[in-house]
Amino acid sequence: MISVVLVGTGNVAQNLFQAFDTAADVEVIYVLGRNKEHLTFAKESVPVSTDFNSIPSAEIYILAVSDDAIAVVADTFKMVEGLVVHTSGGTSLKTLDNLKRTGVFYPLQTFTKDKIVSFKDLPLCLEATNEKDLALLQKLGASLSNTVRVINSEQRKALHIAAVFVNNFTNYMYTIGEDICVEHAVDFNLLHPLIKETAAKLNHLSPKDAQTGPAKRGDQHTINNHLNGLINKQQRDIYMLLSTAIKSNYGTKL
Amino acid sequence: MISVVLVGTGNVAQNLFQAFDTAADVEVIYVLGRNKEHLTFAKESVPVSTDFNSIPSAEIYILAVSDDAIAVVADTFKMVEGLVVHTSGGTSLKTLDNLKRTGVFYPLQTFTKDKIVSFKDLPLCLEATNEKDLALLQKLGASLSNTVRVINSEQRKALHIAAVFVNNFTNYMYTIGEDICVEHAVDFNLLHPLIKETAAKLNHLSPKDAQTGPAKRGDQHTINNHLNGLINKQQRDIYMLLSTAIKSNYGTKL
Repeated sequence: MISVVLVGTGNVAQNLFQAFDTAADVEVIYVLGRNKEHLTFAKESVPVSTDFNSIPSAEIYILAVSDDAIAVVADTFKMVEGLVVHTSGGTSLKTLDNLKRTGVFYPLQTFTKDKIVSFKDLPLCLEATNEKDLALLQKLGASLSNTVRVINSEQRKALHIAAVFVNNFTNYMYTIGEDICVEHAVDFNLLHPLIKETAAKLNHLSPKDAQTGPAKRGDQHTINNHLNGLINKQQRDIYMLLSTAIKSNYGTKL
Repeated sequence: MISVVLVGTGNVAQNLFQAFDTAADVEVIYVLGRNKEHLTFAKESVPVSTDFNSIPSAEIYILAVSDDAIAVVADTFKMVEGLVVHTSGGTSLKTLDNLKRTGVFYPLQTFTKDKIVSFKDLPLCLEATNEKDLALLQKLGASLSNTVRVINSEQRKALHIAAVFVNNFTNYMYTIGEDICVEHAVDFNLLHPLIKETAAKLNHLSPKDAQTGPAKRGDQHTINNHLNGLINKQQRDIYMLLSTAIKSNYGTKL
């Protein structure tokens, strides 16, 4: 049984807490957070505390806190003997350098409040400063997910940047789509099946092969027609930049 | 039983042909295309032809041809008595103005060769020049889909532009994500669950509420770190423009 102290009260902490609850061979023995009210998600099942000066002994400490807080929170774990890991895609392992045993336990997913995500198919990207701790993290990861990978800090940074494109920026494309629909009194829900199929295509096609649309076809008539239809300058700038990029990647000049 | 002549041999034509095959009350009686070899998908079940001078009589003629070809192809249907519709999101109904009875039958989906899509949950956007023809199109649409909507040309144009954002540009975000992964020897498949969850979130959240990431948080440290990590200028330009747009929409200045 791996004993875990979970630190944090945000979406990642709450999702991890739920996932470990049903995992074999792992027990969350304690949850630490700065804000007492935010600890309610855990207090029915395990001891919770806001006191960072009194930390129980555990095999693994998971710092599921915001990127900005990792260094400060880590400082309070200088004296522990267990393995201390953060869960951030964008933070180097070096941020934990003043601790004894360190690692990274990065779940590559977007978490939302009040929506518990299944960890079974969710990639867990691991890093540790030594082989023994990496093996321990792999055991922890395997208790939750079928996709556990060792990824170094540079690769994790690349994954995190790629995640900004496929998640943050993609979601912003949805936002623009919704704004355009609202402007023209069209139901945005009509676009849901298209959005889902666009994602589902990746099961059997690389995105390069799945690309369609006026920019890919070099259809300048439709591009101009669309640009004229966009009254928002920011939307026009984005439409132009992305169309130019797609054309340059498919060998047609604008 | 509604009799249909299908014109075209591309993805939309092939998907419609398959869908009508199992639809009650609709019979595709003939398929017309310019290229004989491309007609093989239909020739086992119905007569096919490349001869646009001899068109059999039918209640509805569906021009499932590329946007550029609609006007030229429509010209050969000037003499028919049936209803002639195109399937294009980006083409006005006026393009068919020299015909007797006209309409639009626009399936809002992305079609891929060799992958037959289910029409059941796929929105069909309809338009016609008179009520009687609109009713006929609604009957045709209801034979395939549970989501049949009357959408005028201006709204359809807006939907088509929105579709470019949520489909074409989103797919390009996936392409950049894959390029970054390949550059750093990371498996792009690790991002698939994130991509799917990003789309699935729309089931219970508007994209505005689902937005996450450094730009939304106003986390300039991470933004700079990511920009330094992108060696491709085009990717940097896109990262900057979209981050600026997201920040301006969430009230934080870059």
